[in-house]
Amino acid sequence: MVTKKILLPESENPKQWYNIVADMPNKPLPPLDPKTRKPMSVDDLSVIFARELAEQELSTERYIDIPEEVQDIFRIWRNTPLVRAHGLERMLQTPAKIYFKNESVSPSGSHKTNSAVPQAYYNKMQGIKRLTTETGAGQWGSAISMAGKHFGIDVDVYMVKVSCEQKPYRRMMMKTWGANVYPSPTNMTDAGRAILAKDPDCTGSLGIAISEAVEMALKNQHDTRYCLGSSLNHVLLHQTIIGEECLKQLEMTGDYPDVVIGCFGGGSNFAGITFPFLRENFTKGRKTRFVAVEPESCPKLTRGEFQYDYADTIGLTPLLPMYTLGHNFHPASIHAGGLRYHGAGSIVSQLLKDGYIEAADMPQVECIKSGILFSQAEGIIPAPESTHAIAYAIREALKCKEEGTSKTILFNLSGHGMVDMFAYEQYFAGNLRNYEVSDEEIAKNIAELDKLL
Amino acid sequence: MVTKKILLPESENPKQWYNIVADMPNKPLPPLDPKTRKPMSVDDLSVIFARELAEQELSTERYIDIPEEVQDIFRIWRNTPLVRAHGLERMLQTPAKIYFKNESVSPSGSHKTNSAVPQAYYNKMQGIKRLTTETGAGQWGSAISMAGKHFGIDVDVYMVKVSCEQKPYRRMMMKTWGANVYPSPTNMTDAGRAILAKDPDCTGSLGIAISEAVEMALKNQHDTRYCLGSSLNHVLLHQTIIGEECLKQLEMTGDYPDVVIGCFGGGSNFAGITFPFLRENFTKGRKTRFVAVEPESCPKLTRGEFQYDYADTIGLTPLLPMYTLGHNFHPASIHAGGLRYHGAGSIVSQLLKDGYIEAADMPQVECIKSGILFSQAEGIIPAPESTHAIAYAIREALKCKEEGTSKTILFNLSGHGMVDMFAYEQYFAGNLRNYEVSDEEIAKNIAELDKLL
Repeated sequence: MVTKKILLPESENPKQWYNIVADMPNKPLPPLDPKTRKPMSVDDLSVIFARELAEQELSTERYIDIPEEVQDIFRIWRNTPLVRAHGLERMLQTPAKIYFKNESVSPSGSHKTNSAVPQAYYNKMQGIKRLTTETGAGQWGSAISMAGKHFGIDVDVYMVKVSCEQKPYRRMMMKTWGANVYPSPTNMTDAGRAILAKDPDCTGSLGIAISEAVEMALKNQHDTRYCLGSSLNHVLLHQTIIGEECLKQLEMTGDYPDVVIGCFGGGSNFAGITFPFLRENFTKGRKTRFVAVEPESCPKLTRGEFQYDYADTIGLTPLLPMYTLGHNFHPASIHAGGLRYHGAGSIVSQLLKDGYIEAADMPQVECIKSGILFSQAEGIIPAPESTHAIAYAIREALKCKEEGTSKTILFNLSGHGMVDMFAYEQYFAGNLRNYEVSDEEIAKNIAELDKLL
Repeated sequence: MVTKKILLPESENPKQWYNIVADMPNKPLPPLDPKTRKPMSVDDLSVIFARELAEQELSTERYIDIPEEVQDIFRIWRNTPLVRAHGLERMLQTPAKIYFKNESVSPSGSHKTNSAVPQAYYNKMQGIKRLTTETGAGQWGSAISMAGKHFGIDVDVYMVKVSCEQKPYRRMMMKTWGANVYPSPTNMTDAGRAILAKDPDCTGSLGIAISEAVEMALKNQHDTRYCLGSSLNHVLLHQTIIGEECLKQLEMTGDYPDVVIGCFGGGSNFAGITFPFLRENFTKGRKTRFVAVEPESCPKLTRGEFQYDYADTIGLTPLLPMYTLGHNFHPASIHAGGLRYHGAGSIVSQLLKDGYIEAADMPQVECIKSGILFSQAEGIIPAPESTHAIAYAIREALKCKEEGTSKTILFNLSGHGMVDMFAYEQYFAGNLRNYEVSDEEIAKNIAELDKLL
């Protein structure tokens, strides 16, 4: 009998998050106030975020307790299965061992719920009545809607207008969980009105939606805060529960990964699966490789620059140190909406700069093809975002076959693709293509940044 | 700490299916040959189905081993969680204990995979190269596509044309898993051509799709067999893995159900969760109630008649004993597509006739409302089919509150609703309504049946 799905007894569910900052040889640079250009304090950040989250954002504590109430909700779907991908190994005829962590089993279908639940909880504890946020593809928006409803906190989601039309199922999921969904740009905010005045037919962008959500939180500070589903230190912290579970689960198999792979948008699912293994590299002399896989059409890690930049297009957010393509960069409309973001989180950017992790870019068609292969081998249809990790894992497994070596490969299946079937339809219809970015376009955007500081 | 999600160690996964026929005081009546009107033998049934499945269809053995290869695939997602619905209990302020079995975690999102895998396996073992089947809502079609791909067997799905257009995501899932999906009626079969000749714009029905799939299997007997996702004895047998797991999981909690609830289309998910508990009633003097919940608009159990009838509209299938509304009955286009079927499985029909189980009908609007409540309380958006079980469970829980009694209620969450969000959208848009069936309509259809025998 072959063990496929490795689960921990519930009593072994992690009770702490791991804060990698404690172990980083070079700490991440601080966020800067967009007006004064000075490092921001917890007080400064607390205007935008719940205080506890602002504290986590700047914390250097190695471990942070997961509140009991949050653990309680996690038990609805955690721990998530670690799966030995025997089917994929057989299909590729590779001597490599392939494992994946199945984050698609969460109620909203992706890893995003891991941070949505604590964010809703800390805001509730502080007496906050309403959360504002943005969503592109809708995975974060649905996760925070679910979590907000659980704690009885209202959620306003500014959803990129074009996504709102393209992804009606995601929009309806948010509504079913009781959230208000506003197609952005709206005429409810200064930012939205200014944009609509210039272009009444504007179909929106993630940058605009962030501006709207932040503005509404700042205007209603008495009972409202803003929240975000990726990039920020506290979000990455919450996701480390993935890797902590994984370490324990792998111990049950006797295997240890030679390479750990995650797709990369802002960094949350990549950090989630890799940081606990990175700790083992830092503290126990392990030599695991870590690969962040981004779309060829949005290559901030492989072709961007390490710079301070804004998280949004308009420039309302703190300035953050990051690998970036510039906040004016407009990514092509690939199906992996969750990876269409100009910048990377501060911690991940520092780790990449210091050589502790690697980055790779991947064309869209290879990703969806790999997703179909995976669906047929393992039975689970992956989200377009997750196909980037799969595509790289397949490349590694085929390299093992070529070289006749048996490595252990681990990747994060960040979500399922059941509400993203349009991407697959486009492939079968022969309409899917790759998008490349010219050096000139990147240089032009980066040049804009030099004026910032 | 409150335990929410109860899982068995993988070593405790059931290794046998339970065949309730062995314990039934009155055995189900046999299938009859549609031409000779004589009871059908394994040989007769083997023309349509794989021989092993034909044997299971007529078996009276109490337990049947689950093949190792099938158990191996089940481990991708089984055992499935038994969840204590603390959130729902809190929301309803009921003294009742509510549990649900979460079958939505399977790769195709419903319990259908439990029978799809063994059906594909037995056909493969027999050397069959191609399976034909029909699908309405698409849950069975996607499950058998996934299973067929796993064993390298081709799958042709005849999908009701109107569903094919309304449920593009389901269609794409099947295609991603490598199946051929034909909008039915097609011009590939005599049945399809005859119907299209009369009505070129015909949008299809489950009955027509079954006729097409059966015809193609009969015409290609050398390497093709037909398969079906509900009603039949062997399908119900395969689903008993749900209840067998549940019994062991409840043992871990110390609770035992006073009532077990499943939604009802042909009987597969209802049988799956109830039959092992029914065995405990038969053999250990337990007094659990069992409630099959059908749509008000398709009330075969509560208002149909116990009769021999066809499984399809045209009359190609064996004659089966069942509670039926008549094979010409056209159910209203409710969102719970999986429950739109004129008849009930033979075993369940016999059990209902003999008073061992109960039936209830439920209007569509109450179901979807209950589904939204459940989504907000437990985080999981249920399939429209499953909302029927939830709605009844909520009624029971509220009755407990009224009476001040604390019962233990268990229901089957047969699938999630992520690819059925249109149903919820219609509710929020105020377009959802109930559909009632007149006594005259039922009487007219039943009268047709009397000519059969």
